[in-house]
Amino acid sequence: MRTILLCTAAALLIGAAPAKKLLTPTDVVSSAPASAWKAIPAEDLVVMDLKSGGRVVLQLAPQFAPVHVANIRALARGHYWDGATIYRVQDAYVVQWGQNDSEKGFPAGVIAKPPAEYTRPVKGLAIKPLGYADPYAPGAGFVNGWPIAYSPKGNWANLAHCYGSVGVGRDLSPDTGTGGELYTAINPLRHLDRNIAVIGRIIDGMDKLSSLPRGTEALGFYKDKALYVPIAGIRLASDMPAAERPSYEYMDTLSPSFARYLHLRANRHDDFYIRPAGGVDLCNVNPPVRKRSA
Amino acid sequence: MRTILLCTAAALLIGAAPAKKLLTPTDVVSSAPASAWKAIPAEDLVVMDLKSGGRVVLQLAPQFAPVHVANIRALARGHYWDGATIYRVQDAYVVQWGQNDSEKGFPAGVIAKPPAEYTRPVKGLAIKPLGYADPYAPGAGFVNGWPIAYSPKGNWANLAHCYGSVGVGRDLSPDTGTGGELYTAINPLRHLDRNIAVIGRIIDGMDKLSSLPRGTEALGFYKDKALYVPIAGIRLASDMPAAERPSYEYMDTLSPSFARYLHLRANRHDDFYIRPAGGVDLCNVNPPVRKRSA
Repeated sequence: MRTILLCTAAALLIGAAPAKKLLTPTDVVSSAPASAWKAIPAEDLVVMDLKSGGRVVLQLAPQFAPVHVANIRALARGHYWDGATIYRVQDAYVVQWGQNDSEKGFPAGVIAKPPAEYTRPVKGLAIKPLGYADPYAPGAGFVNGWPIAYSPKGNWANLAHCYGSVGVGRDLSPDTGTGGELYTAINPLRHLDRNIAVIGRIIDGMDKLSSLPRGTEALGFYKDKALYVPIAGIRLASDMPAAERPSYEYMDTLSPSFARYLHLRANRHDDFYIRPAGGVDLCNVNPPVRKRSA
Repeated sequence: MRTILLCTAAALLIGAAPAKKLLTPTDVVSSAPASAWKAIPAEDLVVMDLKSGGRVVLQLAPQFAPVHVANIRALARGHYWDGATIYRVQDAYVVQWGQNDSEKGFPAGVIAKPPAEYTRPVKGLAIKPLGYADPYAPGAGFVNGWPIAYSPKGNWANLAHCYGSVGVGRDLSPDTGTGGELYTAINPLRHLDRNIAVIGRIIDGMDKLSSLPRGTEALGFYKDKALYVPIAGIRLASDMPAAERPSYEYMDTLSPSFARYLHLRANRHDDFYIRPAGGVDLCNVNPPVRKRSA
């Protein structure tokens, strides 16, 4: 006996139009004016194509980790990731890719020992506050589409480890990692905030990573190298021919549309819901990002 | 170049013993005395075997949803799920199984219209408070190993929608679902708290569900029925022969061991970490549950 379950589009599927249609967060996204959207620069987009045919797109955050981001651009341009693989999938934790235990050298321009870009000063950031308590930091909110945690008093801000966040693999501190080995969080991992350089997030194709078989070795490394997922190429969108270049935009988190979206994420009242929460977790807001139509 | 990354066992893998070994949450679990553990009754364990060979074990929560739990036991005993499948996997949301659009009738003893067991009175619950802010409820904490949200003033408590929580699929309210269609959350989904009956959680084999291919239809339903994941059987552990019956225990959330574990989950200070968070999200505590040795 099929039950539709937890769907924002339930009324649609059932076919009976309710007397009064209450706004969903999705409605706000689809009706937001063009002025609520900002294009993501092509040099902030990293396109990872899997040999199996799937495509994963990563948005870089130079505002938060400029040295690591410069490294990642240099690694992509220097073809460091040719022959790279996904070699680690730890359930409810991370998917990790790169050159693993290869001894491949870095291309020119890569800084081998980047500074610890785990936080940046809060000064200079135009923050839209979340408006609800955060267990990890004095403040939580959004900057240019990114979920962040921050301390006005401590003058620090960090990109939050939410689903899809991308960080830089490292060994024990004070190593900060170069950017050659990257991981994405397949569950919120806020306890890693301020302990690792977060350099961006997956904005498309996340399901290609989250659905990979979990590795059976310690920390989710694949035991059998036959399970490694081969990567066909990792390129900056700005280095791709214009006709092939994908393009994305994010909702301006200072816009009135985002304020409405955030309010509705915290107060679901559409047909399926009977009790709005009156609050929302930083990692459950999911600031809107979408592909731009050509 | 392999980097170990974000590992609790980093020192172990790297092989160099640090001068002073700082306790990890895992250390607390492995050194907790027998008195810190409580056995899970066999009638609270639902064993779901997939035809592919994987096993998934669900712990029921009769303290929170007694009518739905009674239904699920009756459905299992009445072989309702013979021929059932997993037919929906929505990325970062849910994996759902049951009889889908089959017209199969319910076995005797199943209550077709259960009450809305979305919350229960807070009175009578021995709560270990989380001790940190929760954006969804006035209080958050643990009862008998379960993560819960609650309001002392409102006198309600609910099982929180964390990774692995299992809820009852339903249509639009006031339908509450029978228990024939179940889902598990593959990401924290706290906005569903108090809007759906949570009846338990996956305590083993979660990776068999979280790694399934995502469905491409609306809400993650599989388009092609060939993708449906066949379920070989769903049984209560108490109905299995004693020799085959799996057995689990949970850490008593009122024990001193759990208090230490919780403190360390909120204040990671082992070798990998440089800045303890000083807080933790309800869904990132992961109260310990483990298989009992025979």
